[in-house]
Amino acid sequence: MVFEDTADCPSPEQAERNRYKLTIAYDGTDFHGWQKQKTTGPDSAQPLRTVAGVMEEKLAHVLRHPVAVVGASRTDAGVHARSQVAHVDADPPIPLDRVVMAVNSRLPDDIELLNFEVVARDFDAIKDAKNKQYRYRIFNTVRRPLDKRNVVWHCWTPLDVQRMQDAALRLVGTHDFEAFAAAGHGRTTTERTIFDCRVEQDQPEVHVVVQGDGFLYNMVRIIAGTLVEVGRGRFGPEVIDGLLELKDRSKAGPTLPAQGLCLEWIKY
Amino acid sequence: MVFEDTADCPSPEQAERNRYKLTIAYDGTDFHGWQKQKTTGPDSAQPLRTVAGVMEEKLAHVLRHPVAVVGASRTDAGVHARSQVAHVDADPPIPLDRVVMAVNSRLPDDIELLNFEVVARDFDAIKDAKNKQYRYRIFNTVRRPLDKRNVVWHCWTPLDVQRMQDAALRLVGTHDFEAFAAAGHGRTTTERTIFDCRVEQDQPEVHVVVQGDGFLYNMVRIIAGTLVEVGRGRFGPEVIDGLLELKDRSKAGPTLPAQGLCLEWIKY
Repeated sequence: MVFEDTADCPSPEQAERNRYKLTIAYDGTDFHGWQKQKTTGPDSAQPLRTVAGVMEEKLAHVLRHPVAVVGASRTDAGVHARSQVAHVDADPPIPLDRVVMAVNSRLPDDIELLNFEVVARDFDAIKDAKNKQYRYRIFNTVRRPLDKRNVVWHCWTPLDVQRMQDAALRLVGTHDFEAFAAAGHGRTTTERTIFDCRVEQDQPEVHVVVQGDGFLYNMVRIIAGTLVEVGRGRFGPEVIDGLLELKDRSKAGPTLPAQGLCLEWIKY
Repeated sequence: MVFEDTADCPSPEQAERNRYKLTIAYDGTDFHGWQKQKTTGPDSAQPLRTVAGVMEEKLAHVLRHPVAVVGASRTDAGVHARSQVAHVDADPPIPLDRVVMAVNSRLPDDIELLNFEVVARDFDAIKDAKNKQYRYRIFNTVRRPLDKRNVVWHCWTPLDVQRMQDAALRLVGTHDFEAFAAAGHGRTTTERTIFDCRVEQDQPEVHVVVQGDGFLYNMVRIIAGTLVEVGRGRFGPEVIDGLLELKDRSKAGPTLPAQGLCLEWIKY
């Protein structure tokens, strides 16, 4: 076997590494998302601050070797996570519980490593994910969110939660979600399964909670934007049926801003 | 009557102005406190961003005349307010409810004008305050506060809330609070009346809530710091009695960081 690129050639040390599953929480406000696409050209200055970048840097200090962190969900800039999952191949020089403490002591205060555990060598954080839950928080009052302004989207118009709930239920099931994907999503199939979609009231907030086996680019933010249009009376709840049938993004609601979105958990 | 300083000489317009009571909420994170002391010297560059400064600027736009906003509590940098009260003398060119909307439309998203109402000409936001409530939020778990990091103080050590509550009750009453005042507070008397002091659990947070007729500089943050020492077992609850008697600041707990503190309301 000939390796064309040395990057693909595992060293003897790498070949003996185990695979580890990481659980990570972060406030996405000051991150340029989970992972930045490579910036090219001579003008590219400092690398942007990303969750994966910060985590890789601190893990490398503790593990004493470089690591590549593969995240289950590549959250956008401003999007938060309560339990993001990632995998790395590593050879920790210290006990696993000490790894968590050592990494956290190096991490800044907007990110936290919750768990670091050995898993099967073929565990894949992306491909093995069976169910993910996202929550979109809408601050639904004329009052301002003030200290919550980075974790909610502010909507002045009163929302009819019952109408939104009616619409939300119509999304549950296996459908083609083309109408709920940002243009240029680059996926070969737009069919996904939504296990649960509900609208919860937590005065003065309204939350759109979605569980599914996978999500297209901006899908939760477009779902939330469409449900808001239903909640403020511009769309009827049956608009969902038409969108799933016609697959026309331009007929759905707007993509709501990133800061209201949080990846809550991922099940394997 | 001769006016020595033109600043003390009300113009005919000023003499006809009414007094208004303002209620203001803000996230103190990005403010250098309520009101900055004058900076002197040739190096003083941009004026620092203060709550009173921002409010005066936007009010002046709407009222079409300069105003001086007199706040009941001059909160420090990083301290928040749910209902700060202030007074101004003004001659609004538009109805009062429109003043609130017009000012808010100009204010940045970390500050909000909640109310603007006419009051007696001799109303004084500082002198007429009868009772104020402050809340100090302690995030009491090994987990990180992440998106709440600007509104709580993070304490890893488990706190015994019952012990803290026992100590808190000993502060209620009229006492000399010299031991709970930062050095150089510059007040002629350090006697104050605490109407209520309680410790509330709101998992994973512990809150110290204090009501009083007035507070010395850093008083709530030193009270909270002393109660934390009781809660983690370094002081017994009876330490409070000794502090009130001996009036020795050096025997009290540390001044906790500003960001955990919030001025909740002021009664007149």
